[in-house]
Amino acid sequence: MTTMPMAPDALEAALRAIGAERYHIHHPFHRLLHDGRCTRAQVQAWALNRYYYQAMIPVKDASLLARLPTPELRREWRRRIEDHDGVAGKPGGIERWIKLAEGVGLDRAMVESAGLILPQTRFAVDAYVHFVREKSVLEAIASSLTELFSPTIIAERVSGMIRNYDWIDEDTLAYFTPRLTQAPQDSDFALAYVKEHARTIDQQQAVLAALRFKCDVLWSQLDGLYLAYVSPGMIPPGAFVPA
Amino acid sequence: MTTMPMAPDALEAALRAIGAERYHIHHPFHRLLHDGRCTRAQVQAWALNRYYYQAMIPVKDASLLARLPTPELRREWRRRIEDHDGVAGKPGGIERWIKLAEGVGLDRAMVESAGLILPQTRFAVDAYVHFVREKSVLEAIASSLTELFSPTIIAERVSGMIRNYDWIDEDTLAYFTPRLTQAPQDSDFALAYVKEHARTIDQQQAVLAALRFKCDVLWSQLDGLYLAYVSPGMIPPGAFVPA
Repeated sequence: MTTMPMAPDALEAALRAIGAERYHIHHPFHRLLHDGRCTRAQVQAWALNRYYYQAMIPVKDASLLARLPTPELRREWRRRIEDHDGVAGKPGGIERWIKLAEGVGLDRAMVESAGLILPQTRFAVDAYVHFVREKSVLEAIASSLTELFSPTIIAERVSGMIRNYDWIDEDTLAYFTPRLTQAPQDSDFALAYVKEHARTIDQQQAVLAALRFKCDVLWSQLDGLYLAYVSPGMIPPGAFVPA
Repeated sequence: MTTMPMAPDALEAALRAIGAERYHIHHPFHRLLHDGRCTRAQVQAWALNRYYYQAMIPVKDASLLARLPTPELRREWRRRIEDHDGVAGKPGGIERWIKLAEGVGLDRAMVESAGLILPQTRFAVDAYVHFVREKSVLEAIASSLTELFSPTIIAERVSGMIRNYDWIDEDTLAYFTPRLTQAPQDSDFALAYVKEHARTIDQQQAVLAALRFKCDVLWSQLDGLYLAYVSPGMIPPGAFVPA
């Protein structure tokens, strides 16, 4: 058992070790997607389901915003909500994700309704929203730290998808371009906050558990896509059936 | 679109039609389990994961109990909690499930910690707890109506498992015996309540959605077991790895 709190840099190393093991860059569905081995129907299922995650990100950020104690912290989290919801005349991440879904052949209204997503997607994403609502501010901030690992997965995904699918172009993947600068800005802030505020053993263990939980949220979404749309192809009752 | 509320019996028929399509008796994992085509490791994974569902049932019932308006309703729901948590000298469903898990070769402390369950199990079960906590009393009661269909699945499961697995005996499956009388008592009450109180179109649609949601909760748990332990055998990081 741990008997002394870690130094902040050791905590950072422990967080990065969790990502190295559990981040969904290691999931078979990501490999298929990136390597060009997905069918168009599988890419559609991914875009449709991932939309629900995108759509709920500002909801979870808003519930954290409502609990943050200082203007500085609230400004930081308000910026995140703006990134996803947009400002007048400048579409945010949700709108850009809809463009992606339309670009791979889905109907906007069907995507926005989220009526055909996998139950597993809904349960995993809602678990994230509830986690942020119910856990400490420190744990809620720590659960955003998967963004430490997202520039790599985004770079792989965009280059792999453009190279391997002739029906996907850079415009369709425009969602990801701003994320390459937004995500590091987000994770730099969150990492500094966590390193400063997780001082006791209990706090540090809670922070590590929060990041493991969040990796599970992302991993589970790809598990659902794999079972339903790759192998063995068991689409649950009521979920999207590709044309 | 529906323009008139259904008569109570038509509502019941619509509820039963949802079960006929979506209840997890139709899931491939149930068929494997019942037909004796599961390995001991797969039965262990099922018992381990299902424990978390069993353990959270009285938690969801307690959150409903706290919102029920009359002594009559609270007595009914208190009985359900007693069924699962037991009374002094008489073990409840949770304890009987642990016996089942031990009977198929699992360690009690490992099961009780729920530390090795699939994230998908946790997300699905927690979704049920949150649903009951956050939706109307009518929807919460309606979500229990999967018990309308459970005597059949229990009968299939018990007879099939005893016939097909020589390492499982009736004592190990003692969990299920009281459920054969408790479940109909529960569902008779809940069905009568729903038929009496779901009068408007909106209420009836909400009740039907609640039952669909609950079928998804049960189905998704078997999806997770299938992907991890049957095919393609993708056990997520940190979950139970059979010996």
